[in-house]
Formats: sequence, structure tokens, C-alpha cells
Amino acid sequence: MRESDIIAKIRGRARAADLVRVGIGDDAAVLDFGSAAEMIACCDLMVEGVHFRRGWASARLIGHKALAVTLSDIAAMGGVPQFALVSIAIPSYFGADQLDELVEGLFALAEAHGVAIVGGDTSSSPGGLFIDTNVIGRCAMRRAVTRGGATAGHRIYVTGDLGASALGLALLESGFRLRTGDQALPGDREAAEFKALQESAIRKHLAPEPRLGVGRALGEAGVARSMIDISDGLSTDLWHILDESGCGAVIRADAIPTAPSVIRFRSGGEALCLALHGGEEYELLFTADQMNAQKIRDISSATGVPITEIGEIVADGGLRLAGGPGEGAIQAIERGGYEHGE
Amino acid sequence: MRESDIIAKIRGRARAADLVRVGIGDDAAVLDFGSAAEMIACCDLMVEGVHFRRGWASARLIGHKALAVTLSDIAAMGGVPQFALVSIAIPSYFGADQLDELVEGLFALAEAHGVAIVGGDTSSSPGGLFIDTNVIGRCAMRRAVTRGGATAGHRIYVTGDLGASALGLALLESGFRLRTGDQALPGDREAAEFKALQESAIRKHLAPEPRLGVGRALGEAGVARSMIDISDGLSTDLWHILDESGCGAVIRADAIPTAPSVIRFRSGGEALCLALHGGEEYELLFTADQMNAQKIRDISSATGVPITEIGEIVADGGLRLAGGPGEGAIQAIERGGYEHGE
Repeated sequence: MRESDIIAKIRGRARAADLVRVGIGDDAAVLDFGSAAEMIACCDLMVEGVHFRRGWASARLIGHKALAVTLSDIAAMGGVPQFALVSIAIPSYFGADQLDELVEGLFALAEAHGVAIVGGDTSSSPGGLFIDTNVIGRCAMRRAVTRGGATAGHRIYVTGDLGASALGLALLESGFRLRTGDQALPGDREAAEFKALQESAIRKHLAPEPRLGVGRALGEAGVARSMIDISDGLSTDLWHILDESGCGAVIRADAIPTAPSVIRFRSGGEALCLALHGGEEYELLFTADQMNAQKIRDISSATGVPITEIGEIVADGGLRLAGGPGEGAIQAIERGGYEHGE
Repeated sequence: MRESDIIAKIRGRARAADLVRVGIGDDAAVLDFGSAAEMIACCDLMVEGVHFRRGWASARLIGHKALAVTLSDIAAMGGVPQFALVSIAIPSYFGADQLDELVEGLFALAEAHGVAIVGGDTSSSPGGLFIDTNVIGRCAMRRAVTRGGATAGHRIYVTGDLGASALGLALLESGFRLRTGDQALPGDREAAEFKALQESAIRKHLAPEPRLGVGRALGEAGVARSMIDISDGLSTDLWHILDESGCGAVIRADAIPTAPSVIRFRSGGEALCLALHGGEEYELLFTADQMNAQKIRDISSATGVPITEIGEIVADGGLRLAGGPGEGAIQAIERGGYEHGE
């Protein structure tokens, strides 16, 4: 069973409830807790052998990423994270030192964003390492940005650049690793630049930084009208917005911001494929009225995060790519993108 | 590493934060969300092969218990649960029908207590089944009941009766199972009574009912001054109250309410041992001023849940048992109870 089918099943079983403004099916739930702010709650589960592999990353980076991906969901709602709970199932091979490192990775990221870790649970694990992080945050009343707010005429924007996480994963699968603290870069300048670019891709995969500042600014200014974080890949996550909003989109291949490492190590067609379909980027994808273009530039300047316009929301016609391989023609990108697309 | 050591380590790493009234180390966190109510948040992780075994329970009962144990933590704070998020790692042997059943077990219990399941995450699992349930609830301002409020002179109370869950676990380990829907009780009256008592013990283990009504009433009335749910066993959980409150306790062996199944199937000494040290009861253990004895009787009547006085909080001297085996003497019960005690 695919995860999307499982979620659809669970979503179908849930009933509407008074205090639930947004329930299952968005990046996070939006809840009424009788406060002047709205409550935002979400969780993400990371499983060894599914989401990460032993030997790819230090325990500290595993802890960092486990929390980062959940904070990214809060960012995608335009929210501010406040509290976290963490459940960890610990396999027998995982020693006390590694657990210390993992906990340090969780706490360091939490503290960097003013998040208090307030509880959790631990268990031994007869399988691998499992980490479930739950985050509770807030946003101003009616300011939560869902996947359902896109309408025809909106411009489509993405933060940062894309493709590096998927490249980093491919490098890890090929045997490349991050240097440990005592390993220097190669002395040769070109070799050093080569290695540094490789590492930037691997780091994007292993240690994503949630886009909390820019997500919050886009939400509080009322600029982002629909938003999602790119965990499944630009194409799939844009499809989530289209499905929830009931509209279509045209994006331009040459406008998609592609990571320098991807441009350096992959051919044009492959690079586009990684930027378009690569998952686990944890960049923000959002739509906004064109009249807010200046506000978006201002938010980009204020937060230091590049924001790029990549296309436009249209009334229907699914997701289409202009200017991709097959010159001139507009290609349809089916749901499921990388796995099931063209 | 023992779970208590891991939690102590994580608790030691956490820093105080303004909006965190109660952090790591109680049944649940108590948080300020700028509402007239306090927010209560907690999670519990259930792992196949650690907390349950394949073949012991239907998927529906596994779903029920996964949420019940977390709701029990809310009950132990005197709170009212409102929202839940559920993360599930699903092994390949777990089919779509079983997942439906598990989800049904979660939703049925949630709905019975007015809880909305608002989000979650799913993953495949290369190991067994993992379920992490997170619950967010509320209680009136300053009414959350922690483990730290016991003082000398308080009477000690427990809801329901004890020992059946540990007996149920022993029966499961010996090969006994719940009947499935189409199996009748034996025709012989004594055999039927025997089987029904066995099943009541197994059901207490597999399908505990969180004591939400009585927990809430004890909290809202301001009667319970310290409270915990019995997950580790009466002795260990009372130790948690003593450690957090900085006091001692004397409990009376003959006052501990023991489940009928335990009295029927175990000798006196064994029955006391199960009632005193058996875990996963999910009954509430609390302390209260003696002057509130009538209020406690009223709450018991109103909720239909028996509440029994079992001893008294004293200034120090750890946990002591009066009237146990070894007539007349008062025995010390060390931390760690069942595993490491006398």
C-alpha cells in the first residue's frame, strides 16, 4: 500500500470536529485552543532503512534531521514552532554515546529556533532506530497557509534552490560520505572545490535547515496564499497544492532554481529531472498574487533566502512544464512525477 | 541503558522555558498557550516485540491500546484530551485489512472520548509495527495535577483494582488467548466462570480503559494533589510521586484492591506481588488531604469507578509496606520494585 493511499484512508475515516480548522491532509493541523493564536500541530516519523541508513550520518545529524523535517511542516503553514515531543525506539547497537549525540542534535536545532522539547517517550527497538517528532506551534488567527488557497492568476514561487538533496542521496548511495572533523579538504584547489560541492549536496540531504523565518514572514504578511514544503519533490508537492486547490499550473523549466552542485555534476536533462522531482528538499513552495511581487522581494531580502518565481496557477489542465526537453512543446507532468511520469 | 536513565539524561539536557509549566519527567507536559486553559501534551510509543506481540491481539485492540495509554497520561494530569496525532510504521506482513482494523481501534476510542485525530505520519517498517500516539488536551488554569504535590499527611488512593494486567500478560505468555467472535463460553457453569475471569485479566492487559472521567473530576475539584497513572506498577509509580514530591509513604498490604481474577488464580503472596508490582494497569494513583475523603467518595459514586485508600504520605523513609508477608514487620520496598526489590 502506498503512503498516499493510507493517508487517504485515514483522512476518509476522520470526522469533522468543531475546533479543527484544518485536519488530516495538510502539512500540519490547525486547531482552535481558545487562544488569540491558532495552534499548529504536526509530526514526522523517521525510520532507519527507510528514511536514513546506518553509517551515512552521525547520530547528531540524524537527530537534527528528525526534528528539521517536522519544523519544516510548521514553516509550510506560516507558523512559529514552540514545543516539541520526541519518541525514540533505540536498537541494541545504538550506544549511550550515540544517544547523547542524537539528543544533542535534537536540542541544538530546537534551541536555535526557540523550541522547547517538553516530553517524549523511549523504548528499545528490536528493529532499527525510529524517531517520531511532534511539534506544536502557533500563527496569528486565520493566517495559517494551507495547500488549498491557490487560484488562477497566482504566481508560483520556490525558496532556495532544488535538486541537491536528491543528488546528495545518490552520492551517499555511491559511497561518498561527509568528511569527519579531522579530515581536511584536498590541497588542490579544483579538487577541493569538487569535494566541497559534493559535501554541500550531501549536507542538504542529511542536514536540511527548515525555512522557518521566511515561512513565518510569508504567512504573517498574508502574502503566501497556498504553501507546502518540498518533501516529495517539486512536481509531486505542486500536485498536492493543485489537488487541494482545484486548479492547474504551468511552470517554466528554465525558471526552476537548480543547486550549483546539481549543475556541476549532472547534464542539463538530468539536472532538470533532479530539480523537478527530487524529494527531501525542505524548501517552501507557495503561490501568491502577482501584486505582492515586491513584498516577496522584500521578505527575501530581509530573511536572506532567495525566492524564485517559477510559473503560474491556471484554472485547470493539471501540471504542465514549458520549455523542458522536447523544445517548444508544453509537457504534462502526471501525478507521481519521478516514479510514474514521462 | 534503562529507560529511566535515558529520560533522566534527556531531562538533564532540557532548559527551563517561560511557557513550560511542567516539562519532561511527569505524565505529560503542561504548557501556556495564551488560552484561559492550560495545554497538556504527551506521547507514548508502542513497539511490537517490546510492548505487544503479534498474535496476542487483534489489530483493532492494538490500535485501541496505543491511544489508551496516552489518554491515560492526560487522565493522570486531571486533564481533558482534545486532539491526537498518530505515527505508524507498518511492516510488510501487515495487510490493508489489518491497517483498517488498527485505524478503527484508534478512531473508536478517540470518538468515545471526544478526541479528534487531526494528523500523523506513516512509513513502512523493516522491523515490526511501531505506533506513536500524541495527545493534546487541556485543564483549567493551575489545575494540572503533577507527581510533585504530595505532602506528609496526605492519604494515598488508587482507582479500580490491581494485578489483572500482569496476570493477563502471564496468561498470554502461557498461550491463553481471547476468544474470537464466534467462540462461545464453555457450557459448564464453573468452566465458563473460569474462562470469563481469565479473559477479564487478558482484556485488562490488551484493552485498558483510560480513567478519564475520574481523573478529570479529581483534577477539577482540586482534590488530587499529586497523581500518576499506574504503568510501571503501583510500587514504582508511587516511588515516582515520592521522588518528585520529596517525601515517603506507608501503604497497607491488606488495603490494596486486588482484581478478582488475581485472587482466584494466584496464592496470597503472589496476588500481593502482582497487585503491588504489576505494570500496565492504567489505574490512577493519587494523594489527597484526608478532609477530602467525602468528596472522593462522591466522585467515585458519580463516575462509577471504585476508589480505595491504601496508605499515607509521611515525611520520609522511602516506601514502606505494612502487613505484607513477614507478619507485623514493616518492609521497605526499594525503587525498581518487581525487578530489583525483595
